Order: sequence, then structure tokens, then C-alpha cells
Amino acid sequence: MRGTRRQFSLFLEKERKRIDFRLCESLNKREPQSLYGPGSYIINGGGKRLRPLLVLLSVKAVGGKLNKAYNAATAVELLHNFTLVHDDIMDNADKRRNLLTIHKKYDLSTAILAGDSLLSVAYEYLLKDCNGNTKSILKEFTKGLIEVCEGQSLDKEFEMRKAVSIEEYIKMIRKKTAAMMEMCCCIGAILGGGNLNEIKALSRYGRNLGIAFQINDDLLDITGNENDFGKFVGGDLVEGKKTYLFIKALEKAKGKERLKLLKVIEEKGIKLEDIYIYKDIYTKLDIVNEASKEIKRYTQKALNSIKILKDENYRWWFIWLADSLINRNK
Amino acid sequence: MRGTRRQFSLFLEKERKRIDFRLCESLNKREPQSLYGPGSYIINGGGKRLRPLLVLLSVKAVGGKLNKAYNAATAVELLHNFTLVHDDIMDNADKRRNLLTIHKKYDLSTAILAGDSLLSVAYEYLLKDCNGNTKSILKEFTKGLIEVCEGQSLDKEFEMRKAVSIEEYIKMIRKKTAAMMEMCCCIGAILGGGNLNEIKALSRYGRNLGIAFQINDDLLDITGNENDFGKFVGGDLVEGKKTYLFIKALEKAKGKERLKLLKVIEEKGIKLEDIYIYKDIYTKLDIVNEASKEIKRYTQKALNSIKILKDENYRWWFIWLADSLINRNK
Repeated sequence: MRGTRRQFSLFLEKERKRIDFRLCESLNKREPQSLYGPGSYIINGGGKRLRPLLVLLSVKAVGGKLNKAYNAATAVELLHNFTLVHDDIMDNADKRRNLLTIHKKYDLSTAILAGDSLLSVAYEYLLKDCNGNTKSILKEFTKGLIEVCEGQSLDKEFEMRKAVSIEEYIKMIRKKTAAMMEMCCCIGAILGGGNLNEIKALSRYGRNLGIAFQINDDLLDITGNENDFGKFVGGDLVEGKKTYLFIKALEKAKGKERLKLLKVIEEKGIKLEDIYIYKDIYTKLDIVNEASKEIKRYTQKALNSIKILKDENYRWWFIWLADSLINRNK
Repeated sequence: MRGTRRQFSLFLEKERKRIDFRLCESLNKREPQSLYGPGSYIINGGGKRLRPLLVLLSVKAVGGKLNKAYNAATAVELLHNFTLVHDDIMDNADKRRNLLTIHKKYDLSTAILAGDSLLSVAYEYLLKDCNGNTKSILKEFTKGLIEVCEGQSLDKEFEMRKAVSIEEYIKMIRKKTAAMMEMCCCIGAILGGGNLNEIKALSRYGRNLGIAFQINDDLLDITGNENDFGKFVGGDLVEGKKTYLFIKALEKAKGKERLKLLKVIEEKGIKLEDIYIYKDIYTKLDIVNEASKEIKRYTQKALNSIKILKDENYRWWFIWLADSLINRNK
């Protein structure tokens, strides 16, 4: 099951289905339905299952057996969905993956509690795969959870602040997005029986890929295809989000353009029909190119770190995974 | 440090201070302040610290060392406060321990996230005290978390339902309140190095005391002293909550009284000035007495379970603790 990129794609497809099945099973049949029904609803709503795949790929990369990590893979996706449910409340988002968010379909209390219970079941599943390494795995998982809370808090804080530097932004996404991808690789490497160097290398891969992934997400808001991406283009600008692109543009802009950008902060967003003005500013300031360079830089950092992996075949898997994430259009 | 009840009270006082210090320390100095500030605010707002004390008493009861359990004691109180912060949002409560609730003092997003982070730090602290027994301790903690979510979900479900039986109510409080007290005793017994019988006995103590504690809480809503209890008398009736007393009253009532009680469900509460009507109904139906008997029955179950404890002195501690909880007025 190694070799060509096509084989790798088939592997991902097969494992994605297995993960979907496990996820469904993890919440099925639990009572009360008023709690687990909404949880199942979000879980069955789909998703790339990137985080569980990172766990499984890391297990394989260090020569471990996948069978020992499916519960942990399930756990990281449950944790991820816990963050989505609570984040959607905070962002007052109506839709997620083209479906109504839980607090819109049900109500606020249901969404808070469904999120909490996804997290609780995540710990239950993680523990199923722990044998002899419980403490280190639980520590990494909990560290990931702590960081994702801190990252989300910084993100909300930035919404209120006038000025945010690129450094602060990177620190925020390192916590909000990258820490969890780092944790997935780390846990996979531990469960697969990797040595300390392998665990560190894969963790670093996950972290840097996570940063690249998030900047790419910001970029897709401007360059993405409406239908593919599932959100409308320019949504971050409309909501006045301080993305990588926006912060970079503000850093470079002068005169009239700077005033236009400051107006976005002042008015906490822009009108839909004004998106083209800001797209023009971004083009003039070469922001898309700047962001692409930064994405490539972090991707390269990720790929450099896994050079120590013994098996060349698996190194290719991680290269292809990075490539598919960075060149995705949704 | 055993012997008389006065010495026991002094022990509780001393340990409560230690726990307060640890709790304060657990959130202090963490960044970002926008996340941990609100968490510290609720933690420093006080509380009986009943759950950490259950951990410590259980450690002592099986002959263990307190020093090995302070982090776990901190963890269970953090977990408890996580539930309070989220429950207060769901109940739309303005105050807790005479202070504004987090979502009122700050905002909804801050409260959701502060709750999440209290839970994340709880796991971090719990892990500090795990050595060789990580898996069993984490399993119990996670089971407690899962049950508290399920219990809260049932509680919210009952608010919407017309009819709730006493059995359903007991199942709900077993999950919402008793499961966590059971978990505290269980974890304390494990950390203290107790044998399986001791762990089971103390768990049963915690569970049954928890049920008695919650029915007593319902009772205090009617019989409590306004100032001591920190809430106004009859608040549960005003909010139309399906407490033990209300369900029992509905079970026994006939004719006009039954119609009055059904009106509470219909109208989702009563007017403040009508409390005396319902107090009269409760008196006529002997509901206070019925509740008191049930509280005593569960307390006795709790006390029966710890008869296997070798050290008579510690048996007295658990008797005194139950006594002080059941005969409290706040």
C-alpha cells in the first residue's frame, strides 16, 4: 500500500471511510438523544478528516500498526468538532459545511452541551488506545486542547484590537490551528512506537503544515472558487477578520490605501459590493504573492523536518499530503 | 489530626485554604488574560470546595498521602467550575455566589471559552498526580465528565417535558450531581492506594451522598434562609423547575391542587407573590417530610457503604461530612 501517488490517494480514501464509520459509531446508540443527536449531526456533516489522517499517517511512518490508533484518530476528530461547534457560536455562524450550525438548527444550550460532550467522548476514545503510554499521550492531547482554547481566545481578542502584528498573528494560528495538527502527528508517532527523534520530527511537520494550512485558508478566502470553498469569496473581509493577508496589507499600505484598510477595522468589516476595492489593494501590494511565499516557507519547514524518516516511501506520503492541502481549492 | 469533630472541622478549614491557594495558582500567570482572567474570576468567587475535599478525605481514608493528590483535588474543582460556567449560560443566570456570572460580566464567547479552558486545565492538573495509575484515574474523570454532560442534557430536556417521574429525576441527578462526587471519592481512593473494596465503597459513598445532597438542595429552595442560601426562597418554583419536591407533589396531588401544579408546568413557572400558595400545597401533601426521608435514606446508604473502612476515625469523618452537608442551610 505504498508506491505511487494514486495508491496514496486510495489509502486516504479507504482510511477516511473507516474513520467516518468509527466516528458515527462513537456517538450512535448513546443516550440521551437530546445530547448526542446534535453531536452526530455535526460529525456526519462531513469534513476532510485531516486530523485523524495525520494520526494514522504518523503511525505508519514510524512503522506502527494502524489498528492500534483508530480510537485515537476518532478522538482527534471529535476534539476538532468540539472546537467547531463552540467557535460557530462565538462567530455567530449560520452554516458549516453547507448545513445549519447546531446553535441555529437547535439552540444555544444544545450547542454548548453538544460541544462539551464531543470533547468528553474524545477523551473516552483516546483512552481506549492508550497502553503503557497513557500519560504522554494524554499530556499531548490536553496540551493541544489548552492551546486551541488559547488560540481561539487570541483570535477573539484580535477582533477587538486595532493593531495586530504578523508575529502575533502567527502565534495565534500556531495555537488555534497548528497545535492540534502537531498533536495529531505526535500522538500517532507515540502510538506507532516511534523513537524520540521521529516523534519530534513528525510533531514539527504537523505544526509547520498547520501554519501553512491556516495561511492558505486565509488566502482561499480571496482566491478560492465560491462553490468549491463552500463560503463566499471575500467573507473574511466582509466580517473584518484580521487574516494574514489583511495584516500584511496593512503593514505595507501607505496613503489612501492604508486609510481604506483602517476603515475595515473601524467599521468592523466591509460591504459585500466593496470587495473588489480590497482585491485591487491586495493585488497592488502583491499580497497574494507574499502569502503564497509564506505558505511555501512553512510547508518547506514541515518537509525538512521529516527528512529523518527512514522509509522514503512514507516521506513521499507527507510530501503529497502537504501538496494536496496547499493546492486545494476548498 | 483525627479525633473530635472540632478537629475534623479544623482539618477541613486548613485543606480548604490549601485548595484555594492551588486553584488560584493554577490559573494565575497564564496567558492570554482574556481567557484565564474570567476563569480566575469564577474560581476566586469562592465555593464550598466540597469536591476537592472528597478527593482528599478519600485519600486519607485508605491511608494515602495528601501530598500526592492536591493536583487532582484542584482538577475536580476546575471541572466543577467548568460545569457551573456553562450551566449558568444555559440557565441564563445573572448571579453565582452573589457575583455576576461570566456571560453577564463579560460576554457569551468569553464564558463558553473560559469554561472550555477550565476543563482543559483540569486535565492538565489531573495528569500531574498520575503515576502508574494514569489510565484508571483518567477513565474515572472522563466518565464523570460524560455523565455530568448527560445529566445536564436530561435536566434541560425535563424543562421542556410535561411529565417527569421520580425515577427519571433520580437518574438525572445521579448523572448531573452524584457522578462527579462519586468520581472524586473514587479518584481519591485510587491515588491513596486503596484496594478494590475500598475504592468501590468510597465511590458508593460519593454517589449516594451526591443524590442526598441534590435532593437537599431542592429542599433548601423551600425551607432555606434567604440570606444564608444566597438565592431567594422559592426560586425553583418561580422558574418552574422540576425538582424532587415538585415531582413528588405532582405525584400525590389530586383535584384543585393538581391543577395548580400543572399550571406551573404550563406557564413554565409562577409569579413570586404566589409562592405561598405552593408552599401551602407542599405542606398539605407533606412534601418536605417526604424529601427529608429520601435525603436520610440516601445518606444512610452512603454511610452503610463505608462500614468496611478499617479506621474508625475516618468513618467518623465521613459521617460528619454527610451531617454537615445535609444539615447545612446554604
